[in-house]
Amino acid sequence: MSPIIKPTLLIDVDRAKSNIRRMAAKARQNDLSFRPHFKTHQSQTIGRWFRNAGVNAITVSSVDMAEYFARDGWNDITIAMPVNLPDIDRLNHIAKQIDLHLLVDSLSAVTYLTEQLRSQAQIWIKIDVGYHRCGLLWYNSEEVIELAQKIQSAEKMDFRGILTHAGHTYHQSSVDEVLRIHTESIIRLIDLKRDILDSGISTCSISIGDTPGCSLSNNFTGVDEIRPGNFVFYDLMQLRLGTCRYQDIAVAVTCPVIGKYPNRGEIVVHCGSVHLSKESLKSSTITTYGYLVPTTPDGWSSPDSSAPIISLSQEHGTIQMTKDMMRHVAIGDLVTILPVHSCLTANLYSNYHTITGKSISKMQSMV
Amino acid sequence: MSPIIKPTLLIDVDRAKSNIRRMAAKARQNDLSFRPHFKTHQSQTIGRWFRNAGVNAITVSSVDMAEYFARDGWNDITIAMPVNLPDIDRLNHIAKQIDLHLLVDSLSAVTYLTEQLRSQAQIWIKIDVGYHRCGLLWYNSEEVIELAQKIQSAEKMDFRGILTHAGHTYHQSSVDEVLRIHTESIIRLIDLKRDILDSGISTCSISIGDTPGCSLSNNFTGVDEIRPGNFVFYDLMQLRLGTCRYQDIAVAVTCPVIGKYPNRGEIVVHCGSVHLSKESLKSSTITTYGYLVPTTPDGWSSPDSSAPIISLSQEHGTIQMTKDMMRHVAIGDLVTILPVHSCLTANLYSNYHTITGKSISKMQSMV
Repeated sequence: MSPIIKPTLLIDVDRAKSNIRRMAAKARQNDLSFRPHFKTHQSQTIGRWFRNAGVNAITVSSVDMAEYFARDGWNDITIAMPVNLPDIDRLNHIAKQIDLHLLVDSLSAVTYLTEQLRSQAQIWIKIDVGYHRCGLLWYNSEEVIELAQKIQSAEKMDFRGILTHAGHTYHQSSVDEVLRIHTESIIRLIDLKRDILDSGISTCSISIGDTPGCSLSNNFTGVDEIRPGNFVFYDLMQLRLGTCRYQDIAVAVTCPVIGKYPNRGEIVVHCGSVHLSKESLKSSTITTYGYLVPTTPDGWSSPDSSAPIISLSQEHGTIQMTKDMMRHVAIGDLVTILPVHSCLTANLYSNYHTITGKSISKMQSMV
Repeated sequence: MSPIIKPTLLIDVDRAKSNIRRMAAKARQNDLSFRPHFKTHQSQTIGRWFRNAGVNAITVSSVDMAEYFARDGWNDITIAMPVNLPDIDRLNHIAKQIDLHLLVDSLSAVTYLTEQLRSQAQIWIKIDVGYHRCGLLWYNSEEVIELAQKIQSAEKMDFRGILTHAGHTYHQSSVDEVLRIHTESIIRLIDLKRDILDSGISTCSISIGDTPGCSLSNNFTGVDEIRPGNFVFYDLMQLRLGTCRYQDIAVAVTCPVIGKYPNRGEIVVHCGSVHLSKESLKSSTITTYGYLVPTTPDGWSSPDSSAPIISLSQEHGTIQMTKDMMRHVAIGDLVTILPVHSCLTANLYSNYHTITGKSISKMQSMV
């Protein structure tokens, strides 16, 4: 176990495993297929923790990631982005080896796949239930049905159902708002499914995805599959939404203090945008890029006072703190920071460092 | 030359070399030591372009980066962060091999180095000329002199001078404001230097660093060394400041279109925060994370119409465009995006792809 000397991504293994078990149990209780999104952790080792919790199908966000997890024995993978047509050769290659699920939301993609797919693939139509990123709008039944019929009639494609990511839950400020969007999304998908079945298509599953809705709600009537990802680690954004508790956050960044400026009430750490990502939380009074928490022998504890990162440059982070806190911090000390968005923070590292000093490797996500 | 099938970091080699030559010429004309910051490109190959332009001393922002460039023969390196004390073993190791320059801004760091340094190191006192990130304030002559004297009297340390990064130039909205800060910073450092020399210390160099000031100003009287970094690529942030022209921007990201939403006037590309960074430019009407430019046989051209990235999630980017532009874009096309902050964008990739299809490797910056 070597000492930490530079910005390091810490993982609390027990918390992550407990987050996994809790979501897996909720899926079982609600009779849902659980297809977690692995873009958050991007690690074969952490993937195995899910396997041990009974998971056998996963979600990823790129062909690179599908290949990485297929190499570790995952053979049922959804690439949850509208299909990337220039990548057709790799898609054909991987579709030969595993059950590959793809997303479409356009006639042009379906036409292209009809001509170019060489192995069987499972096809989902991406639905926009109000987030307005990707997908056909939920009320455009005709367009969705036309697409579903074309998929069904294609030789190499099986129509699996409709899939959404209600990412607008992330932008809410209360549990009630998250729950309202969650319920509204499901109702919209159920209505659409009814139209699809009425058109003569025999089966249509419903898949939903966001961590806030899946964490907070206990109502999944009508839903077949959930695909949350962020919940394995959670973060300050989820904490603010009310989706998790402090003690559920499973990753943090430990970094050295390199400057101390008592007159400004600030310290500077070697921990910048390249160590945390530039994701921020805004309130009416402050924009913050992370929160300092006390380091403990077990990892870290909840913040006992106010110490936000108030600015980030490439390698520096500036943390505001009270005079009393500052008296307990020296240049050269290691401090621990909770990230605003754990997916983007974890993406910046090549491995996790457990609180007992072991290393867990992850995908080299640089491209 | 393999086809581009996923988000890829493009480099226009001619533009980067021309940016390097221009800054090197300016340094020569003003009789300045030119010690460019290599955190922007993080590539041994690109480092050699600087060497060919007569550069023999460089700046980096971490011990990792110092080691990476020392392996390629660089033997005069400044680590331009207040020294990271927990990393003392690696610092001692590298100080044995090369001329290592370190920054301090506290008595505690100087005391630590006095006890722990095993090889000779060149020491600069970091000065805060108004950016308020790191450094002793420019008007605290007494404190600076006390530190300089302690450095001089330590066996393994040579006092080299005072160094600043006037990073507040990045936050200005006009060339005049940048030039005002540039001049003010130099005056503040010259005044401080006079006090230092008056105290009996025999030599004190002045080193400054920011790309906006170094690009725009022709007045460097009193300055001994410049350390800009971003100018090798420039980006939209520099363009807005007036520091560069469109045709000076030397990196861009090419990525596939995965969704097209004419009713919203938006397309979605496979290019998210993990491909561009979450750095944004804000105006009173819009927050943007990059700008779509037309792809040409030579790389890319200036934007001919308005197409900003208006939102970014982990792997998706949403681009707003006119109906006319949208008629010329199809799902599966590759489009090119200029980054807001090239340092953070380049940091996310393991190599550059030239516009003639060659690969240029860079440091694996993941930690």
